[in-house]
Amino acid sequence: MPLIVQKYGGTSVGNLDRIRNVAKRIAKRAETGDNIVVVVSAMTGETDRLIQLAQKITSRPNHREMDMLLSTGERVTIALLAMTLQEMGWPAQSFTGRQVGIVTDNVHSQARIEEIQADRLRDALSKKIIPVVAGFQGINRNSDVTTLGRGGSDTTAVALAAALKADLCEIYTDVDGVYTTDPNIVSNARRMHKISYEEMLEMASLGAKVLQTRSVEFAMKYRVPVCVRTSFYDRPGTLVTEEDVEMEQELVSGITYDKNQAKVTLVGVPDRPGIASTIFEAISKENVNVDMIIQNVGQAGLTDLSFTVPQTDAVQAKTLLTELSEEIGVAEVLVTENIAKVSIVGVGMRSHTGVAAKTFTSLAAEGINIMMISTSEIKISCVIESKYTELAVRTLHDAFELGADRPPAKEPA
Amino acid sequence: MPLIVQKYGGTSVGNLDRIRNVAKRIAKRAETGDNIVVVVSAMTGETDRLIQLAQKITSRPNHREMDMLLSTGERVTIALLAMTLQEMGWPAQSFTGRQVGIVTDNVHSQARIEEIQADRLRDALSKKIIPVVAGFQGINRNSDVTTLGRGGSDTTAVALAAALKADLCEIYTDVDGVYTTDPNIVSNARRMHKISYEEMLEMASLGAKVLQTRSVEFAMKYRVPVCVRTSFYDRPGTLVTEEDVEMEQELVSGITYDKNQAKVTLVGVPDRPGIASTIFEAISKENVNVDMIIQNVGQAGLTDLSFTVPQTDAVQAKTLLTELSEEIGVAEVLVTENIAKVSIVGVGMRSHTGVAAKTFTSLAAEGINIMMISTSEIKISCVIESKYTELAVRTLHDAFELGADRPPAKEPA
Repeated sequence: MPLIVQKYGGTSVGNLDRIRNVAKRIAKRAETGDNIVVVVSAMTGETDRLIQLAQKITSRPNHREMDMLLSTGERVTIALLAMTLQEMGWPAQSFTGRQVGIVTDNVHSQARIEEIQADRLRDALSKKIIPVVAGFQGINRNSDVTTLGRGGSDTTAVALAAALKADLCEIYTDVDGVYTTDPNIVSNARRMHKISYEEMLEMASLGAKVLQTRSVEFAMKYRVPVCVRTSFYDRPGTLVTEEDVEMEQELVSGITYDKNQAKVTLVGVPDRPGIASTIFEAISKENVNVDMIIQNVGQAGLTDLSFTVPQTDAVQAKTLLTELSEEIGVAEVLVTENIAKVSIVGVGMRSHTGVAAKTFTSLAAEGINIMMISTSEIKISCVIESKYTELAVRTLHDAFELGADRPPAKEPA
Repeated sequence: MPLIVQKYGGTSVGNLDRIRNVAKRIAKRAETGDNIVVVVSAMTGETDRLIQLAQKITSRPNHREMDMLLSTGERVTIALLAMTLQEMGWPAQSFTGRQVGIVTDNVHSQARIEEIQADRLRDALSKKIIPVVAGFQGINRNSDVTTLGRGGSDTTAVALAAALKADLCEIYTDVDGVYTTDPNIVSNARRMHKISYEEMLEMASLGAKVLQTRSVEFAMKYRVPVCVRTSFYDRPGTLVTEEDVEMEQELVSGITYDKNQAKVTLVGVPDRPGIASTIFEAISKENVNVDMIIQNVGQAGLTDLSFTVPQTDAVQAKTLLTELSEEIGVAEVLVTENIAKVSIVGVGMRSHTGVAAKTFTSLAAEGINIMMISTSEIKISCVIESKYTELAVRTLHDAFELGADRPPAKEPA
């Protein structure tokens, strides 16, 4: 019998009616004889409610206590969903992260799964019980509750699918798949029926926000096919899987963008070895995440160094670097907040040329100035002024002919 | 250094302000150098909110799932209280029932503590950490979450105090101690400064509702002194402890009542051996809790059998017995719901006579008819018509001169 891991996100279990709908969906699949393991998130709003309580107490809550607090959200959902399935006559049972043996490292609030001892799950499945597992959580070797970061339930689902050698991991969310770009910007954005792990990683980390990046890494590592679907309709969704010939024939798969970035420029950096290292070590010590970095060869032994950071870290980065500037002899630290990063992603780039040229030409034709460029094997990213974001995305989506004939369906109210 | 276990009930931690007050109270004690272990309940209303969610799903929720659901309430409180203490500069840490090693039997929703492996608590105390422990919960040998029943946090606190050989267990609740009777009925009811475990057991199980009965049994078994206090004021509270000479000099300690009882009468029961056993075995199989039982010697081989059950079980008992009545030849099953049980409690009764006579005389003088009487070494209970409850309590409270000169203080709004 096929084994399917199904994960339902917060909006899919947002109230008792939706939990009942999820239960029906599970039952329908169970009736076909498939073995099912269910992973759920906290009911939508619950995690935010708990975070707000903590924030009223302290601006810097202890991470261990936050994990204790937030892990309750998923526990409520598993109990309610298990009860609902039982009421419908199915032998369901709830399990916490600990009970299914999800062992993580000690990094509270951003823990990584180190091991899964899925004995209780295997035992439940052998007894034809439908396990309902709390996503997002595990325990460390000290037996303390840990959480896997926002979107961590995706990783729980994929990790369990890997541990149980499941045939498929279905991620039910409030979007019905992965689109060629944001449908809110491009009305004829098309749902992809298939995408490679590598492309999905680029799409997700660039802001497609469909799957937690780590869950895709996990899926890629253990070759778990992941299907992203909506729980509100019966739609096929998007399959995230290994790269195949079909994918390579597509030049570009999708266009993503990220407006939550800021550009930091250090003007007049002395062009001597070790300077960049001093700068980026200082930044990394403060846990500021640097994304794109560009350094131009300068004149008279001076150069300009630019990089992007999350907008939320921009002030911190500026303060830090201004303090540092005297020591290393930098003339000025500039921060530009109104920027956006637009990226073109596609495994087809590996075997096709001309994507970069077409990208720059299309943007230039619309009068959009490119401030920074960064490329990888399957991605080209351009930093532009943020006011041009929508225009750039539409332009590139058209240029690479990614559109569908029909617009995507709307979400239910 | 003295070791104190403090337990704070749901109203004491009902919102963030109250949690802050509790933290201040803990800090004040910690400043004296005492070692403190804190046990907390769910924030008031939270448990009811969760129960309502479950009841919307099913009228008979699975007990294991209910425990999974309800155990989240205390986990929220421990995290929030630990954060609050940390914000005040105290090294606090939250612990679940599992983490402090509370191992129970398998009776979900009414589990009994079988063992406490308090290693982590001892370790935390040795590091001068203030442990904040989730009351009401434990795990069974199968590693499933269990709960100890309503008021179970009291039992957690007393059990931890016993395991750690604490010097005192303080139960902070919304009343400032144990009163000679209900202050809502008798305005000059007096707070007792001391009461024996035995008396407290009779007071609690008879409806004083201050401490969970099982916690008192635990305290008596392991000789843990328990102090019942309010967290809203600085008041000494009532010490529940071993019987001493001072207590024996009091004839009667308190008057309690219980309106949530119903009387079941079986008319014309064949007076032959084994009948009562058949009846009460059938009732106990349905988990109906029988309290007082009275059987009169009858005429012509027939007798009447009366007993009291919780009002919520009255319908079930009647249905059950009506079905059974033909089989055993009972003429009629009568249920009277408008009854109340009024009880006089006091260890002094052991060494004094005349309490029963005075009780009956006082009630008769007010024209109150006694329908059933039951006595034990330290208690006399009378079943009367419920409309006379307040009159009976006031009459007995006066007759045994239990009143104070001043009325008790009011609760804060």
